Amino acid sequence: MNSEVTVGIIGAGRIGKLHAQHLALRIPEAKVLAISDIVLEAAQQCADALNIPKAAEDYHEILDNPDVTAVIICSSTDTHAQMIEEAAAAGKHIFCEKPIHFDLALIDQALAVVEKADVKLQIGFNRRFDPNFKRLYDLIREDAIGQPHLLHIISRDPTPPPIAYVKVSGGIFLDMTIHDFDMARYLIGSEVEEIYVAGAVMVDPAIGEAGDIDTTVITLRFENGVIGTIDNSRKAVYGYDQRVEVFGSAGMIQAANNYPNTVLISDARRVHRDLPLNFFMDRYIESYIAEMQAFITCVREDEMPPVTGMDGRVPVVMGYAARKSYTEGRPVKLSEIASLA
Amino acid sequence: MNSEVTVGIIGAGRIGKLHAQHLALRIPEAKVLAISDIVLEAAQQCADALNIPKAAEDYHEILDNPDVTAVIICSSTDTHAQMIEEAAAAGKHIFCEKPIHFDLALIDQALAVVEKADVKLQIGFNRRFDPNFKRLYDLIREDAIGQPHLLHIISRDPTPPPIAYVKVSGGIFLDMTIHDFDMARYLIGSEVEEIYVAGAVMVDPAIGEAGDIDTTVITLRFENGVIGTIDNSRKAVYGYDQRVEVFGSAGMIQAANNYPNTVLISDARRVHRDLPLNFFMDRYIESYIAEMQAFITCVREDEMPPVTGMDGRVPVVMGYAARKSYTEGRPVKLSEIASLA
Amino acid sequence: MNSEVTVGIIGAGRIGKLHAQHLALRIPEAKVLAISDIVLEAAQQCADALNIPKAAEDYHEILDNPDVTAVIICSSTDTHAQMIEEAAAAGKHIFCEKPIHFDLALIDQALAVVEKADVKLQIGFNRRFDPNFKRLYDLIREDAIGQPHLLHIISRDPTPPPIAYVKVSGGIFLDMTIHDFDMARYLIGSEVEEIYVAGAVMVDPAIGEAGDIDTTVITLRFENGVIGTIDNSRKAVYGYDQRVEVFGSAGMIQAANNYPNTVLISDARRVHRDLPLNFFMDRYIESYIAEMQAFITCVREDEMPPVTGMDGRVPVVMGYAARKSYTEGRPVKLSEIASLA
Amino acid sequence: MNSEVTVGIIGAGRIGKLHAQHLALRIPEAKVLAISDIVLEAAQQCADALNIPKAAEDYHEILDNPDVTAVIICSSTDTHAQMIEEAAAAGKHIFCEKPIHFDLALIDQALAVVEKADVKLQIGFNRRFDPNFKRLYDLIREDAIGQPHLLHIISRDPTPPPIAYVKVSGGIFLDMTIHDFDMARYLIGSEVEEIYVAGAVMVDPAIGEAGDIDTTVITLRFENGVIGTIDNSRKAVYGYDQRVEVFGSAGMIQAANNYPNTVLISDARRVHRDLPLNFFMDRYIESYIAEMQAFITCVREDEMPPVTGMDGRVPVVMGYAARKSYTEGRPVKLSEIASLA
Repeated sequence: MNSEVTVGIIGAGRIGKLHAQHLALRIPEAKVLAISDIVLEAAQQCADALNIPKAAEDYHEILDNPDVTAVIICSSTDTHAQMIEEAAAAGKHIFCEKPIHFDLALIDQALAVVEKADVKLQIGFNRRFDPNFKRLYDLIREDAIGQPHLLHIISRDPTPPPIAYVKVSGGIFLDMTIHDFDMARYLIGSEVEEIYVAGAVMVDPAIGEAGDIDTTVITLRFENGVIGTIDNSRKAVYGYDQRVEVFGSAGMIQAANNYPNTVLISDARRVHRDLPLNFFMDRYIESYIAEMQAFITCVREDEMPPVTGMDGRVPVVMGYAARKSYTEGRPVKLSEIASLA
Repeated sequence: MNSEVTVGIIGAGRIGKLHAQHLALRIPEAKVLAISDIVLEAAQQCADALNIPKAAEDYHEILDNPDVTAVIICSSTDTHAQMIEEAAAAGKHIFCEKPIHFDLALIDQALAVVEKADVKLQIGFNRRFDPNFKRLYDLIREDAIGQPHLLHIISRDPTPPPIAYVKVSGGIFLDMTIHDFDMARYLIGSEVEEIYVAGAVMVDPAIGEAGDIDTTVITLRFENGVIGTIDNSRKAVYGYDQRVEVFGSAGMIQAANNYPNTVLISDARRVHRDLPLNFFMDRYIESYIAEMQAFITCVREDEMPPVTGMDGRVPVVMGYAARKSYTEGRPVKLSEIASLA
Repeated sequence: MNSEVTVGIIGAGRIGKLHAQHLALRIPEAKVLAISDIVLEAAQQCADALNIPKAAEDYHEILDNPDVTAVIICSSTDTHAQMIEEAAAAGKHIFCEKPIHFDLALIDQALAVVEKADVKLQIGFNRRFDPNFKRLYDLIREDAIGQPHLLHIISRDPTPPPIAYVKVSGGIFLDMTIHDFDMARYLIGSEVEEIYVAGAVMVDPAIGEAGDIDTTVITLRFENGVIGTIDNSRKAVYGYDQRVEVFGSAGMIQAANNYPNTVLISDARRVHRDLPLNFFMDRYIESYIAEMQAFITCVREDEMPPVTGMDGRVPVVMGYAARKSYTEGRPVKLSEIASLA
Repeated sequence: MNSEVTVGIIGAGRIGKLHAQHLALRIPEAKVLAISDIVLEAAQQCADALNIPKAAEDYHEILDNPDVTAVIICSSTDTHAQMIEEAAAAGKHIFCEKPIHFDLALIDQALAVVEKADVKLQIGFNRRFDPNFKRLYDLIREDAIGQPHLLHIISRDPTPPPIAYVKVSGGIFLDMTIHDFDMARYLIGSEVEEIYVAGAVMVDPAIGEAGDIDTTVITLRFENGVIGTIDNSRKAVYGYDQRVEVFGSAGMIQAANNYPNTVLISDARRVHRDLPLNFFMDRYIESYIAEMQAFITCVREDEMPPVTGMDGRVPVVMGYAARKSYTEGRPVKLSEIASLA
């Protein structure tokens, strides 16, 4: 139980490199044996920088390596489901970036293979490990606000992604809101029953031309009665805006943004401070380390992963329900999309 | 133009007394000549305390008094429309507490009489005069946030009214949310086109038994494209919660709660401060004075009232649309209720 | 005990008018019978505006009026001591603006006459009635921070007074710091034993040429062991800065500035808010009303004034000690200036 | 220039282990070759955990190792000066924890050897690298507040050290305030000319019996006219309190405490948040990494260390001046202790 967990990383893009650094430098219980990327040079550079023994072009070199205990899947979304299946079949524990896939049937098939193989699967909903949102979660469980009544999630990006990315992103609900769908379920501890979407193109007409929207307010009705909203914009000029408020019978809790410093400046015109931490690599860095630590721990200690395959599936269902609500201009039940059981 | 505005007050209940005090003590350009109440003793007490020359049981004594230039209608809601008509017919300028009435036909009839009589009519949406919300309004007009995209109004009472009141209140949308409907129109400067309501009984089952709800999140779609939410609860244990956030293409503005003091206490367990100002008499006192000052000024200077009869009518339409949305579980257009033109 | 307190006001300058308004409009238990000013027109204007029956040039008309129970002395500082004596001799209760006088012997003489005449004397240290500082005071008495160890008072004006005023002001310690000396004694509930001053001319050389300083940090050593500082500047470009922090064995309490609204603005450059309330007429308006209410109540109820003549004397002693410390560059004991007993 | 900097660490106590971790895991340009401690086991444990090739009992094994370019001195204070001399003589670049020594003559002798050997010497005043204080420093240089007038440093520990430690600590001024003396010089960019101390034993009589004090307010007069205060307590029950305020001709800047999360909790009694980050290992962790990164960079790039030997010497002089001021109850000039040139 006290031995290192040997790891292979599939994908050396932005998020793959991030996980590689954390596994190599910040998590002593992990040992990275190999990293692969369809662009071999990217894998090699990362391996060199972090003293990872092996770089590969083909991820099968990782899956076929008997010394590798766990794999970290950071490749493009369309490859996730298949890789999960292959990794599970190879007996590897799996950490997979969100979303699992856009095809619910493929998700279900992958989860079935995982279950049969009896390996761990953790999905990369890193925000659950953020100290602010973790504190909200704990406070709700400690009964600090009594019975939750209302939830508000504000989640606005500093700037929209390139239009080329928008076109293949799966749409705002599956690309951006999916994190907030997970946060909603995580905090409230109940499934959402019905979704109503008000959405629009307000930031950039090109996003609309690409068949997507950039601004939305989503109403969530939970099975336990809680009512929630998610507010998304692709462009907040003041930076990354990530706040949550939960109101209950005995109080209210609010997580505010994080800032690069605490300095307040009073001059002849105003009292001001610097803008919040910009975008997710700065804002959520602690949570990326913590989620990877949690995965390594659950492999070592043979524990249940804190974010399961089903936790990866439900937000995709929610994304489809949101899309249908937006298209049809009416509240849509998740059961119209798929069973949650 | 520089003479005093002579005033008669109809109704010596909580809000009537408040207006009487402000008119008598805080607004030098007003002179209160009389106050009436169906309970004569209430009118007399108020008159004695404020050196008002005349107390009456019948409000016609005020309407028939040729020295009275303007009347302040603070009686029960069901009497508003008729009193407006009578006062207008008597050539008096009118300040009337919200809502004008629950019957749209009677509202329209009253507004027609006012228009024909060519007297001023101001409706008591005092929150427009609150320094926080006024600052939001001005910032939007000064283009501080560019084009508004999203609006959020949080409006939670510290404690529910008595069930007896709930039964005659017209329901949460016409009794409580009506202030927020007005605030939404005021800040955004556009009419709401469609309303979707998620609501529930979470605070007290007795409110449900009385045919009302106590918790609601309302989605507003404005004609100019803005999307908004209103969040109401009849019971916030930490006190009166009155916040607004407006997000736009060039920034965000947020009005926070007001507190009785600025003291921060750090002890061995936490950093804390006192609860916000409790309920509307404390929280909005400045706005009550300012709205009455504005009414007196508009009478003296022959200006347009800052909150018109139509401003009193539209929120009632919104209230009915909200109720219909809640009952039918779907978004409802205001045009299903009444024309806004 | 329930009759009105009849009042005469001496001085119709800025502060005299302020007190007149509050007594006439905000404090029902007071009735202003007369106001005097060496400029009769000023008194007359104020009387007209507030329905005060009598305006006079000579304040003796007020002192000689047998219907006047209490006088409010708002004339220039050099006249305070003599007027106190005369008013006391005439059997009037007295509210006197700070400071009583710059001459300790004359102060002592005036206080002796007051004591002999057995009338009330309240000194105008209005900040004791400010909701923030009152809350600090109460928290200390409620043992919220245990035994106080350290006190910090920040007290900075938005802009220096005219040089002509500086020359007759008695110097920064007796003109500006005197309020902070009172606040220090009030909060800590112990006398200051020793004062050390670091001071300089940093804002305007003309203030130095007038024999005064404009910036100072003062160390206070209290008899009960508490150590305090007062930080004064004649010019804070961001506005009136009035904060206090008390640190103790069981916690810390801090009073922050007051703002005209709670609005926070996030734009592409910063998160900001409006500057604090500007200067004392805005910032301390509540405290002016409350101190006058307290005086009227103590006259009506025959209670001890909340700010006594001795409370007016000690800060003058502290001002002289501060001046001596600044001049001699060493800590100075108050006992070098005068006995506090 | 692009090669790794090879490092040896002397001392494997709390701070030595911290630096070892950062050098081994967080700073890719450094390579730790050896660590020594008089308790060999401590060095060995640290070496094992971080894959450091060599653990030694005798630090001369590090100084004699020709492969070691730079040494990190984290041993007890009384050994610093001698080790600096030996390391400089061995041609090693040196990072040394503060303070250099308590004996000014030994400091001067060590600095002379360093100068002659022409090696880098950086002193461990890590707080200069804290994001909050760095932002203050930059804002002053960017002229955000014009000419600085006043400086306030609040620096309070959560709990006093053991009495055994107090006895050998050199006293509060050389042990605790020394960080604040450095911060004062760093921010204002001018030397302190004169110091006045008000101090007392308020936290624990045992500290007084050990010949030390636990609470102090220090007035600093800088050569450039700025007036500053430092406020120290050995025990703030609410945790580690580390704030700075600088007031100038064109504005004010304030650095507040850091918190473990941004969550605000409103319940039926108060609005509250968690206590600030507790003590220096949490609060200043970023600054420890940044200072070590800066040292490695200055060795690699042959740059001037950002905290020089003279920066290590002056705060010791200030500590002695403070002690003398406390003992003699008067302001003391630094020139009474030693020349700063």
